[in-house]
Amino acid sequence: MLIDSSEIYKAAHFIAPYLHKTPLILDPVISGQVKTNVFLKLENQQISGSFKARGAFNKMLAFSRHQANPGFYVAASTGNHAAAFCLALRRLNLKGKVFLPENASTSKLEFIKALEVPYELVGRTSLQTEIHCRKIAEENGYHLVHPYNDVEIIAGQGTVAIEMLDQQPELDVVVAPVGGGGLISGLGILLKSERPKIKLVGCQPAHSPEMVESISRGKIIEEDISLPTLSDGTAGGMEPGSITFEICRELVDEWALISESEIAFEIVNMLRTNQILIEGAAALPLAYLRKNQAQYQNRNVGLVITGKRISMMKLKELMKEI
Amino acid sequence: MLIDSSEIYKAAHFIAPYLHKTPLILDPVISGQVKTNVFLKLENQQISGSFKARGAFNKMLAFSRHQANPGFYVAASTGNHAAAFCLALRRLNLKGKVFLPENASTSKLEFIKALEVPYELVGRTSLQTEIHCRKIAEENGYHLVHPYNDVEIIAGQGTVAIEMLDQQPELDVVVAPVGGGGLISGLGILLKSERPKIKLVGCQPAHSPEMVESISRGKIIEEDISLPTLSDGTAGGMEPGSITFEICRELVDEWALISESEIAFEIVNMLRTNQILIEGAAALPLAYLRKNQAQYQNRNVGLVITGKRISMMKLKELMKEI
Repeated sequence: MLIDSSEIYKAAHFIAPYLHKTPLILDPVISGQVKTNVFLKLENQQISGSFKARGAFNKMLAFSRHQANPGFYVAASTGNHAAAFCLALRRLNLKGKVFLPENASTSKLEFIKALEVPYELVGRTSLQTEIHCRKIAEENGYHLVHPYNDVEIIAGQGTVAIEMLDQQPELDVVVAPVGGGGLISGLGILLKSERPKIKLVGCQPAHSPEMVESISRGKIIEEDISLPTLSDGTAGGMEPGSITFEICRELVDEWALISESEIAFEIVNMLRTNQILIEGAAALPLAYLRKNQAQYQNRNVGLVITGKRISMMKLKELMKEI
Repeated sequence: MLIDSSEIYKAAHFIAPYLHKTPLILDPVISGQVKTNVFLKLENQQISGSFKARGAFNKMLAFSRHQANPGFYVAASTGNHAAAFCLALRRLNLKGKVFLPENASTSKLEFIKALEVPYELVGRTSLQTEIHCRKIAEENGYHLVHPYNDVEIIAGQGTVAIEMLDQQPELDVVVAPVGGGGLISGLGILLKSERPKIKLVGCQPAHSPEMVESISRGKIIEEDISLPTLSDGTAGGMEPGSITFEICRELVDEWALISESEIAFEIVNMLRTNQILIEGAAALPLAYLRKNQAQYQNRNVGLVITGKRISMMKLKELMKEI
């Protein structure tokens, strides 16, 4: 294993002054619906609105404390990672720039503009933007803050699991969404080190199942198999050579694919029962539990509610179903 | 003054093991919109979904620790106070019952049923339900947990201000919604004791301005002057003899009335900019600041975001505007 669980405790130490310890709540209504004890780890309440702040702060703190000159930071993202990166730049008083695809929506730019972080619109797809960002970083000696393929990013995301075990030591299973695999890698390293009996389940949207397909084939797939999905935060697969692939192959006990209608149901159900807005990715663990509830009766199930980033247009569409 | 600020510190001590210390966040996008430093006290993240848990836990802990027999608890409410009361009953392992009007919606009952708290539907209006509840309490020697007209409830709600001063010692003004006046009474007692220079602003919906009208006339009005309002959490006025009236008269520096369209704008704006669902009452301070922004340029303004309880039907209507 590339990363020892001690790296995650180290990350927890350094990020603590800047981040929230988010609640893990026993949700009475959803627990009743699925007849098990449902514990929600509310990373939608994390600063920047998602768990991504954990990895971004850990990475940027590690860069900046190890060097006399803190340097210049770049990242490519339209979503949670961009928000986390921009907030970390501001809070840590660092210099940097974020790259977004040319079609990035106004609402995504609004947060970045409010934080006064320099940005550049480049590339027609996220992948083109990422390739451009890596090239700029390499040419100029900038620090690239990658969304998942990075030891310190994974260690930062893994701090979610430290808190979950502190908050509920008797978890039987932990379920999380998977995109590039940074979060579930961190969760897996920590949980399998501390509490190897806890089952770890990774969920992807059926419309963008790159990690599941890669695990199934035994290597990272390179072709584009994504369809549009409500779980845009997990869409798009991994770059070649991603360290998350091997970690996932070793540590994730079960994989699940979730349909668009299942995702839609969970977003609306959470809004109705808890008045909490969640993103499509955060709906994946809820949908997994609902359809597999028979095997988890009266167990303690921890679900990572990763974030809250959802477009108002999508939400408006979903509200029509109510 | 009936209540000394020390009562609020005492409340903070006793409720701490059960409640969240909610975040006070400097909101970059809304700060940019109104050109001031907007600090949001996110009581929508409080357990039970609103600040009401503070008062309910404080009251019920005080009852139960002072008596050999913990007794039987009753409350009347359809909204945040009912959720707080039911959660406190469960967490503190107490016995009790909640009364709701006959027209209480299914979604409101869902949470109460999930917590397995006994309930009874009685009365056509909230006032009728409250009168019935008080009568039952008096006849049977039950402990009535009133939503605002109670020293320990006020002391519990005041703990919001302790946290705000810890989190941002340099606040210039604090703005909160006002219904029965429990929250703003607690805020006022704490703030005027610790930091008398902080301006305290109370907001009501123009459609239900009972406290503002009472202050203006110098006595608690008894006639019903309410129209339907998105800020249902603050609607309906005070019962005769409410202790909150004198406290508000003495400690609130400024009053504001907010229109329905202003409330609607702020609910949608918060959802769009922060992906946070707020109730109508929580929109009142935001609307006050937006229309009075000229006098608060570059000041530190603390707004109490009281909760998140809003019906899906109302939200659906509001989403049509986007």
